[in-house]
Formats: sequence, structure tokens, C-alpha cells
Amino acid sequence: MRNRVVIENVRPEVNGGAFFIKRIPGETVAVSADIFGDGHDHIRASLLFRHESQKRWTEVFMQEAVNDEWTARFRVTEKGMYHYKFVGWVDHLLHWYDGFLKKQEAGQDMSVELQIGAQLLQQTAENYPKAKAEDLKALAATLADASKAEEAVQQVLSPGFKQVVESTPMKQFETVYDQSLRVRVGWEKELFSTWYEVFPRSTSQQPGKHGTFKDVEALLPRVEEMGFDVLYLPPIHPIGKVNRKGKNNSTNAQEGEPGSPWAIGSDEGGHKAIHPKLGTLEDYKQLIEKANERGIDIAFDLAFQCAPDHPYIKEHPEWFLWRPDGTIAYAENPPKKYQDIVPINFETEDWKNLWDELKSVILYWCEQGVRIFRVDNPHTKPFRFWEWAIAEVQKDYPDTIFLSEAFTRPKVMAALAKVGFNQSYTYFTWRNTRRELEEYLTELTQTELRDYFRPNFWPNTPDILAYELMNAGPNAFAKRYLLAATLSSNYGMYGPAFEFMENTPNTNGKEEYFNSEKYETRHYDWEHRNRLTELITKVNHIRKAHPALQSTWNIHFTRTDNEQLMSYIKLTEDKKDVIWCVVNFDVHHRQSGFVEVPKALLGIEGNVHLKVTDLLTDDTYHWFNEWNYVEINPAIFPGHVFRVEYS
Amino acid sequence: MRNRVVIENVRPEVNGGAFFIKRIPGETVAVSADIFGDGHDHIRASLLFRHESQKRWTEVFMQEAVNDEWTARFRVTEKGMYHYKFVGWVDHLLHWYDGFLKKQEAGQDMSVELQIGAQLLQQTAENYPKAKAEDLKALAATLADASKAEEAVQQVLSPGFKQVVESTPMKQFETVYDQSLRVRVGWEKELFSTWYEVFPRSTSQQPGKHGTFKDVEALLPRVEEMGFDVLYLPPIHPIGKVNRKGKNNSTNAQEGEPGSPWAIGSDEGGHKAIHPKLGTLEDYKQLIEKANERGIDIAFDLAFQCAPDHPYIKEHPEWFLWRPDGTIAYAENPPKKYQDIVPINFETEDWKNLWDELKSVILYWCEQGVRIFRVDNPHTKPFRFWEWAIAEVQKDYPDTIFLSEAFTRPKVMAALAKVGFNQSYTYFTWRNTRRELEEYLTELTQTELRDYFRPNFWPNTPDILAYELMNAGPNAFAKRYLLAATLSSNYGMYGPAFEFMENTPNTNGKEEYFNSEKYETRHYDWEHRNRLTELITKVNHIRKAHPALQSTWNIHFTRTDNEQLMSYIKLTEDKKDVIWCVVNFDVHHRQSGFVEVPKALLGIEGNVHLKVTDLLTDDTYHWFNEWNYVEINPAIFPGHVFRVEYS
Repeated sequence: MRNRVVIENVRPEVNGGAFFIKRIPGETVAVSADIFGDGHDHIRASLLFRHESQKRWTEVFMQEAVNDEWTARFRVTEKGMYHYKFVGWVDHLLHWYDGFLKKQEAGQDMSVELQIGAQLLQQTAENYPKAKAEDLKALAATLADASKAEEAVQQVLSPGFKQVVESTPMKQFETVYDQSLRVRVGWEKELFSTWYEVFPRSTSQQPGKHGTFKDVEALLPRVEEMGFDVLYLPPIHPIGKVNRKGKNNSTNAQEGEPGSPWAIGSDEGGHKAIHPKLGTLEDYKQLIEKANERGIDIAFDLAFQCAPDHPYIKEHPEWFLWRPDGTIAYAENPPKKYQDIVPINFETEDWKNLWDELKSVILYWCEQGVRIFRVDNPHTKPFRFWEWAIAEVQKDYPDTIFLSEAFTRPKVMAALAKVGFNQSYTYFTWRNTRRELEEYLTELTQTELRDYFRPNFWPNTPDILAYELMNAGPNAFAKRYLLAATLSSNYGMYGPAFEFMENTPNTNGKEEYFNSEKYETRHYDWEHRNRLTELITKVNHIRKAHPALQSTWNIHFTRTDNEQLMSYIKLTEDKKDVIWCVVNFDVHHRQSGFVEVPKALLGIEGNVHLKVTDLLTDDTYHWFNEWNYVEINPAIFPGHVFRVEYS
Repeated sequence: MRNRVVIENVRPEVNGGAFFIKRIPGETVAVSADIFGDGHDHIRASLLFRHESQKRWTEVFMQEAVNDEWTARFRVTEKGMYHYKFVGWVDHLLHWYDGFLKKQEAGQDMSVELQIGAQLLQQTAENYPKAKAEDLKALAATLADASKAEEAVQQVLSPGFKQVVESTPMKQFETVYDQSLRVRVGWEKELFSTWYEVFPRSTSQQPGKHGTFKDVEALLPRVEEMGFDVLYLPPIHPIGKVNRKGKNNSTNAQEGEPGSPWAIGSDEGGHKAIHPKLGTLEDYKQLIEKANERGIDIAFDLAFQCAPDHPYIKEHPEWFLWRPDGTIAYAENPPKKYQDIVPINFETEDWKNLWDELKSVILYWCEQGVRIFRVDNPHTKPFRFWEWAIAEVQKDYPDTIFLSEAFTRPKVMAALAKVGFNQSYTYFTWRNTRRELEEYLTELTQTELRDYFRPNFWPNTPDILAYELMNAGPNAFAKRYLLAATLSSNYGMYGPAFEFMENTPNTNGKEEYFNSEKYETRHYDWEHRNRLTELITKVNHIRKAHPALQSTWNIHFTRTDNEQLMSYIKLTEDKKDVIWCVVNFDVHHRQSGFVEVPKALLGIEGNVHLKVTDLLTDDTYHWFNEWNYVEINPAIFPGHVFRVEYS
């Protein structure tokens, strides 16, 4: 009860420590807390952190900012869980030292002060291991020697003494703030990944033929050349035959229609089976292996729902809801019914077996080599299930990614990230104006979200042809692409539809594709390359070469004098890699204007001299002014991606 | 593990439930939380609260606002501690009911739906006591009767059925949010009190004579007439004779100088003793009694510090810090020393006995009849001590007030309020402009502070002659007075200095009084009444007559077209008492302008017709417009205090 320091308002701290925050190796954790004591005594505070594999805590002395806020930071280097906590204490040695300096300057008699100092050093020594304790005791003896008072005063005034006071604090009655705060340090790919989504059935080089894993394998060189490192395939399982959906989501498929791959399961198998037309498990494993050789991961679509003929329904009727007339409860959004999909009833009495079975599905695919799971509609399954399942799987497979495909309300999306999803789909898809994007990026990177919600920006998905892209021309596609790929270090596209600029909306007026690939097999000319193919390839290789583009947290919006031009800089902590993007939001007209050099951000104190090289065109400019002219013709490139050099 | 609802971001919640929030009987507690479930099932949530004397929780169904925020409110009526918590659940009955309405409207066959409804009602019945359960079962039977399907459908569509669904929710797998959240409901005076501070030694009617409790008693009719209900006396203990301070804080008092009453203790006694010149304990008890008869409380000054000759120092040397040369450690702010004051060392090994002794001091004065403690410099004693001491005292004496005299950094002031102080001094003393005051009141009433920090506004104290009042004229005093008394339901003044408009600053340039009463005895002409006396008397009686002025939380700033005019309305929850203040910030010139009628706040939908009566002048105006003319001559009154009547 003698501790006198208060520690509160600790950040980061998600739901009082209930959830961990997220980092990858090499990232830093910046912490802050309100810390203060009673009275006027000097206080100090430390951040303590340790990797779960270590017993010893590493101590970082915190710095006092303003208004009783204290800050510190630490770098995480090892994968796994780190723990962190805080201590604060009244530091009588520091308090005495500071008073000593003031009294000495005021010309007061210092003899008793020296004796007090000797006592405090002696007391301080008791808390330190032998070597340090000896040094402190020797210093105490010097101060205590009344015959050498003047010498002792000089000793206290020396820089070395200050160093002792700072490095060997006198801790008594510490206040400990320990709320089980944790940082999960995961796979590097959680923060930097580049996704291309393709329906495997649409990969055949022969029109009219159902694509196979072998066809996907043949696509790998193209995917690699374009600079993607995640190839995401929609569900690869047998597709339900009962109530199968036809072209354009029609209620009943015609003979021969392939159905939606998200209607999982039939007499050919369920969530651990492979659609026979795609090939064998061996083919799939070989695809994974060949992809890995090129640095590409095959992302798996985890969609925990069932077609009416999924084997689970017969094997585990207790996992589903049944109506009084003996029929199964389909998914519905009254008055609409989705008769090709049966949701799992997570409220079942048999929930334990259900959870174990679903976990076994994930582990099964991990065993086949899958490391990335794009999780379909995670917000329609309980948060606690995901919290448990992801933690369980990542015990055995720490280098896995779970991407939350939840396009829903903000707090629900955030909650899924809190319980463990490593990446999340975002509202980028619908954020179109400069102001919307600046606000959204600020929310993602400058609020609490930054610590647990890792955005993955998608301009389109098989479900979403955004209004911005409906009937849009190449300039609009190029702009949306450049924004996704440079604003966020994780981005993805529903590949061929985006690259080949599909822009025909569904006739129902919704943000959907006409003749959606969800309900039919397509044929693409994979030899085809267009302006977008070139841009994607270029930008993906710039992303790989520039660490500044491999994080989302390092973005800084800067000023322009033209509302149509958005300007942002991303840079590494050491400022060695600096990328400056200027994007033209007007897809119809050339726009020009001036952009301001953010001197404070770049650490420039004197005159400006930047060498900026547009990595899209290789043009180089020398900027000597604080405001510099740029001009962007959307018919050529949607913006500048400058590498910035300066000294 | 089958609960599917998340409850987070609960407000009010101070430091995760570590500290209680505060109310007086009759006030409401408005709560909110982010609450959501997975999927599309309907969810519901309840607030549960109970007084500590009750075992049963009272349930309030929460309302959904926007963005997954849910709200509710409850009124506290009994003093003591209330507990509150939250539950949320997926409500299958409500979900089915909502779907039923939609399907029925879409003309679907409802027979199976009726059967499902019957099942759900049957299940719901299991959770309710007999009477309700019977009703639910009867309803279930109606729905289940296939021969009367059309009748059953009509039954479900009836308003009575909606009522059943809403009032008897179907709870399963509830999520409980219980963080020991508490509301302390205290004495009404915690929220509404009017303080007058006077040095008892300055109350004699004869110049040159040391005042006594008897003299203070003689002042009571004046204090009552002026409308004060707390008479606060600085420390009444023997004053240290060693190192006593003289006139204007000079280091050594001359023979006969009385010293500062905050230098407590001498050979005449310590914290349980009374200064012999003030009278006896009996006199003090009689003063309390006589004051109480007039509705006035005598506030006691609790200053836990000692003069060098305080008995504690001999009796408990272990409670103080001693220097190596055998001298005691005085208070200091290096290089300055305050040799008339010795701080208590709360880090003493003997802290338990120290705490008990200090608690016994408070209880001793409670036993003599004291109920209000103005605590001197609480921020120089440990927070944990106050948390314990206040709780201990309020166990035996729940109707007590501890006012925190901490003029220090914002988070320290807030922390003292969190640990239990019932009222707090504020920065009002230095908030002078209209914008400063609007911002400050917004911070006090619209942020988390509202729930635990009760402001007490003081325009001056014996320590502080604010710059605004230095050499100021009556208009400035009147303005500062009116602001304190109408912005905050708790306010006080260092009485005679304010009322008689002392305005001469100390020669050191600081915000201090010249010839401070802290170091000398004064004589006042208590028969004297001036313009300020009249204003204070008038306003205090208006405050007593108008509940709208008896709360600080009900303030609403409204628009004016003249920056010099600040306009604010305070009103009771039932809008029956509405007070509208307009204050002229220009103390030199008449100012006029228009003020807007806040129709939404007042609940006015059609045309405006307000009858406003200035309670200072008794002038009445009829306002028929949204903007209305006001004119204030600071030489007469600093502002309007309108009673607003409308229908």
C-alpha cells in the first residue's frame, strides 16, 4: 500500500488486454501510458517486455512527454508471443540529484546533501547485482567522505554521475501495471502480400473445357512474372447438386451448369474433398509445391457452410437446424431464401465435436501444404469459435494467415480482427474520393485499429463490381489499382475480371458482375497482356524492391494545391527508402499542381534538394523548392510513384 | 462457449471498473455499450442494476442506437452503492417474429412458421415464472393448432403479440458483462452547495481582537441571509510556534504575529486540538449546531502536514524523514525551503499506524459534528491512502463531503476524484474568456469526467488573487461571481476578500493577495453591504428556488451573434424549470445582441412564444422570434438570469 504512482490509460491495450496486438519481426511497438505520483517527488517508469520463450524481462526506461503521458518503444524480432507490462516508482535518488543541482547552483551548503546522497546510493546498491552494487557503494563512500566534500560535489556534478542516476534507478514501492498485454509476432507475409484471385475451373487454355489444377500450374509463370505472391482459389470442393444455382444466380441450374463453388459438398464429399473435375489431392499438393518454388502461396477458401447434399447433413444432423415439418433450415434473409446453402448451427448441443471437426478441416489442409486461408463470411460464425480455432491452428502452424472476408459493420469487422484474423477485407472497395481515402487511411493507421486490424485492399471481388468500375474505362481501373497497391501493403484483386477490365454490371442494378463467374465457367486468353497488365507488373516489382511499400503504417498524406491530386509519402523508419505517390483522381483530364515537401517528416532542416525518380517512367527531377510542380495525364499513368533521394 | 454476442466499450466505466461513478438520489445514469452478434440473427441486450441492499437485479431492456451502440438509463433513488452490469443474447423468438412479419407480407405459406413460433414460445416459457409461463404456453398452443391457422396468423400480427415478444425475451447463451461497475449515490449536498470561506480569527467585531467561534456564530445570520449553506473555516488547530511565518510570508514572524493556520500543531496540540484563542471544543460544537439550525454546514480544513513543533514529531518520529545531521526534513522545492511545514512521510515502515491515526483524526471531527472536509493539498498524499480513508469514513458517515483542494495537473486532479473525493476545485479560477469557459464546461460535463469529477467553482481563494481580479473593479467581480454561481451548482468564495472586492496583488507579481490573510488577522465590517453583497444574496436565493441551477450536468450553450455575450440554458429533465443565462464578458461597455432560442432543446416544434423573466430585475419579456434582442449594462448587472416559461 505504499506505492504512490498511478499507471493508467495504457496503449496499446485491446479490450483491457483480452486480445493481443499484432506485429511482424522487425516492427516496433510504441507504447504510452498516463503515469504520475502524488506530490512533487520525481518519478520514473519502465516498460518491460519479453518473448514467451524467455523468462527475463527486458527493461526500457520510459520518456516523459507532456501532460503526464510517458512513452517508450521496443522492437520485436522473434516470431511468437511477446508480453509487456509497466512499472512506475518514486525515484528518491533522482529526486535528490535534481535538488542537489539546484541547491548547489543557489550556493547552499552541500555537506548534509552529500551525506543524504551517500545514503541513497547505499540503499540503491542493495537492489543491484554485485558488480553494479560495488560501483554504487564506492560512489557512496566518496560522497560520505566529509574530508573531500569539494571533490565529492564535483563528482556529483560530473556527467558520469548523471549517467549512474539514470541507469541505476532507485526503485521502491513500485506500481506494476500487468494486464496480460501481448503482441503476437507473425509471418512477414501478414503485412506484405499481393493477391490474385482466379477460379480454377476458368483456367483451361481450351475454351469450353473445365480448368484443372494442372491448368492453374501452367498459369504460375504468368502470376510470378506479374509479381503476385498469393494465388487465391475459391472453394475447391465438390459442389452441391441439390438446389444448385444456375447462370446469373438463377434458382435452378440447368443440366451441365457448374454451380457456385461456395455451395460446398455433395455425394462426392465435403470440406476435406476435392472437386473431381479439378483433379486429385496429389495435383493440388503439386500445385502448392510448384507455386511455393516461385514464392507464391496458394490461398485456400474456408467457407464453413454446406450445400443441402453435403455429407455432414446426414452424418451430423444435430449440427443443423430442422424445421417442424422435418425439412432443414436453409439460409434466409426473410422473405428471401437461399436454398443452395445450409448454415451450420453453432448453438448445437454437440458444439464441441463440431468445433473439433471444423478445426480438423483447417489442419487437414495445412497438412497438404496450405498456409493462407481466406475465410468466407467469418462474421456469420461465432467470434469465440474463431478465437479458439485460429489460436489452435497457429500453435502448430504459426506461419499461417487467416484473411477475414467480412464486408459488414465496422465494429463487427474490428471484432474479428481482435479475435485473431491476420488480415481483413476493408471498405477500400467503396472509398473513392481523395477525402474519403485520406480519412479511411487515417482511421486504419492512426487509431487503435492500427494495432490489430491489418487491411487488405481489394478493388473488386467476384461478389462486387463497385460502382466506380461499372462501365469504367482503363483510366479508372488503373487509378483504383494504383491506389490499392500503394496505399496498402496487402492488396488483392479478383484477377482476370480486374486485369481484363470487366465492367458490365448485373441487370439488377446491384454492384454485381453480369454473368458472374460464381455461377459459370469462363475462358480467358492468358496470353493477353494489356495496359493494366503492364502497370500491375511494374508496380508489383516496385513494391518488392521498396521496403517503404511493404508496410501500411508508414503513410503520411501531404499537401497539394489541387484537390484532384492526392499526395502521400511512405518511408522506412530509417528514412533510407522514401516513396512519394501523387495520384490524379480525375480519370478524364490531365491535372497539374504543386505538391509540398514535408520537411519535418523527411528530417530536412535547411534548403530543399530532392532527387525524385518516377519509378513508372524512370524520369528524374530535381526539386529545390518547398512546393514543386507535377502534371499527370491519366491516359498514360494514373500517378507518379517517386523514389525520393536526398541528403 | 455458445454465447454469440459481444459486449464492449461500456460507458460509464472508470479504469475498467476499478472506481465507482457518482450520483445523488434522483439522478439518472445513462449507459451505453457496443453490442453485436455474429450473423444476422436478432440480438437484444439488457442493463441490470441493483442497490447494494437488494439481491434482485432490475432489468432495463436496452435500445439500439446507430453503429451497434446500445443505450439505456436508470434512476438511482437510494443512497449507497448501486451495481450495474449488462447481458446480451441472440433472441430467436424476436428473430422468428420479425421474419414472420416479412414472410407473411410477402404472401408465403405460414403453416411451418406457426409451428416454429409455437416451439419457440414453449421454450421461452421455461425461463419464466409460472404466471408468465402459462401465458406463453397458451399462446404456443394457439399457434400450434393447425386447424386455426388463419386465426393464429392474425394473433401473431396483433399488437399484443408484439408486446409479448418484447417483454418476455427468449434468452439463451447470454453474454454477461460484469466488471464490478458501481455507482455511489451520496448526499444531495455533493452536487449542490454554496460555500463562504472565512478565517475565524478575522471575525471579531472589534478591530485588533482575535476572532473566536462565538464571533463566527454571530456571523451566521448574515451568512444565512446571503444564502450560503457551507461556511468553511481554515484550520482551527494550534499554530506552530517554531519557524512561524510572518506578514506577507516573511520567514520569521515577529512577536505576536499569528502565523499561518496551515502550519498545524504546537505544544498546545495537534490535529485533534483547537487553537486556544478560537475557543473550546464546546464552542466549536455549538457553532456547528447553531449553523446546522440554519441549514449551514461548517466545513473543516483537513491539512495533513505538521509545524515543526507538532506533537506527532516527538511522539512518532518514524512518520517523518530525518536528515543525516539529525534535523527533520522540511518541505522544500529546491532551492526553496518551507521551514514552517514538515510533510508526513507516507513511505514510513509504520504506515499502517499512520493511516489509522489519520483516519481517527477525520472520525474525531465527524464525531464533533463535522460533515464537510475541504482537504488541503490532497495531491501531496498517496492516492491509495485517500481511497481507503474516504471509504472508511463514509462507511460510518455516508453523508460527508471531501472536497479536493488540488490545483495541479489535470490527470492528477482527475485521479483524486476517481479515488473518492466528492467535489473538486477546478481551473475555473483561470478560465476567463467565453471560449475558454465553454470548452472547459464541455470537458467537465460531456466527457468521462462527468461521471466522477464534481466541480466546485472558486473565483478566488486565500492563495489566489487571479489576474482577472487584480486591481479589478466591481463589474469584474460581479461577472466572475455570476459565472461561478450559474455555471456550476457547487461554488465557493474566499468570502470577505471577494465580497469586499480586495484587488491588491502581492508585490512579487504572483497571483497572490497583498497582506495575505494567511499570515495576519484582519478586521472586517460585517455590517457593510455593497453591490456585490446584494448580487450574491439575490443569486443564491435564485439558486435555492430553481432546481435547474442545482445541477452542473444540465448545461447547454446556445448561440449569440455577439462574441461578448455568452448564453447558456440549464433545465431540469422534465423541462419544468428552465433558466437561461446571458453574461456580458465586456466589463466596461454595454453590449447588445441577439440570442437564439434552441427549439430542439426546449422541445418546441411550432412557433416560438417564450415568456422570459429576468430574476435579477423582475423584468418580463415575450419572445416570439427564434432570435431575440438582449442588452446588458455591466454597471448594473453582469448578465440576465431568465426564468423561461412556455407551453
